[in-house]
Amino acid sequence: MAGPRDEIEGLIALMARLPGLGPRSARRAVLHLLRRREGQMAPLAAALAHVAASARDCPICGNIAMGESCEICSDPARATGEICVVEDVADLWAMERGHAFKGRYHVLGGVLSALDAVGPEELGIPRLIARVRDEGIAEVILALNATVEGQTTAHYIAEALEEAGVKVTSLAQGVPIGGELDYLDDGTIQAALRARRAL
Amino acid sequence: MAGPRDEIEGLIALMARLPGLGPRSARRAVLHLLRRREGQMAPLAAALAHVAASARDCPICGNIAMGESCEICSDPARATGEICVVEDVADLWAMERGHAFKGRYHVLGGVLSALDAVGPEELGIPRLIARVRDEGIAEVILALNATVEGQTTAHYIAEALEEAGVKVTSLAQGVPIGGELDYLDDGTIQAALRARRAL
Repeated sequence: MAGPRDEIEGLIALMARLPGLGPRSARRAVLHLLRRREGQMAPLAAALAHVAASARDCPICGNIAMGESCEICSDPARATGEICVVEDVADLWAMERGHAFKGRYHVLGGVLSALDAVGPEELGIPRLIARVRDEGIAEVILALNATVEGQTTAHYIAEALEEAGVKVTSLAQGVPIGGELDYLDDGTIQAALRARRAL
Repeated sequence: MAGPRDEIEGLIALMARLPGLGPRSARRAVLHLLRRREGQMAPLAAALAHVAASARDCPICGNIAMGESCEICSDPARATGEICVVEDVADLWAMERGHAFKGRYHVLGGVLSALDAVGPEELGIPRLIARVRDEGIAEVILALNATVEGQTTAHYIAEALEEAGVKVTSLAQGVPIGGELDYLDDGTIQAALRARRAL
């Protein structure tokens, strides 16, 4: 097809690059928007343009910031002396949804990987060590994924922080709330058994 | 959460209104875009804004048009004397993907419904009759969905076109290509049997 239709096809192709949308569902989404040009398509375009132009990486923690620094780093109530280290912003959001952690974060933006040439510098680990010293941090909580790379990175950070004299902890591993033993993998059951507690 | 984060939450809420995306996948999509602000988020915002501003309903057939009229109505090669009547733009796109129809369309934008107060005027049926007369149309192909409402609408249009002296046809019903009889509903098998052909 020729000409103007290409613009709509181009939009469908951009939408199809989003996770969870394939070519078929991207077409359906664009058609949905084309039928609601005033009410949904224009507002979505404006919101995307605004966030694309305003969002930046927080220079302190690596979270997404809409201002100079992110809302967590700029909130004085969150200067609790605790830093939670996460792999990426998705994990930070997941922690925030839990409403359990009241301190600040350090977003690594990845994990150590010799293959991909990701070293401590790339993950901002020297910056984390400087923050621990400068902000008078008492505890660093490692909330890294329970994968081999995540745990390797966690051990590296724990060692690097050893001489800073800060308490380093990590999230407990065990049976998820509501989890059924029958559906859990062997590693989780082993970890839960090793970390068993007296009732 | 306060302030700037609300702008991202607002964007997630807008994305979550797209078909095929829920709150969870909308959040994942926004995070994906936040990590690709230059490369994907800004281009998507620009494409959405451009299409939202430029797209309109084709005044002739009701298709989505990026110019004065849609690319099909403005293509002289498609003045074949045939009009295909479809329920909505999604159906027009589906017909076009088939690459089998070379004429023009009439998009009803719905089906007759007494309950929803959708009558012939709302579906542009008088406009269709005028087109048949003015464009010297020889055949009107009804490509409406095989639902009760779709077939009711098809019969109404066939009757309304009776005095225009135009040939009115509808898509054949039968076994889909690659369809297995075992998985077909009874109505399809009955329709395919009634419309059986000599080999």
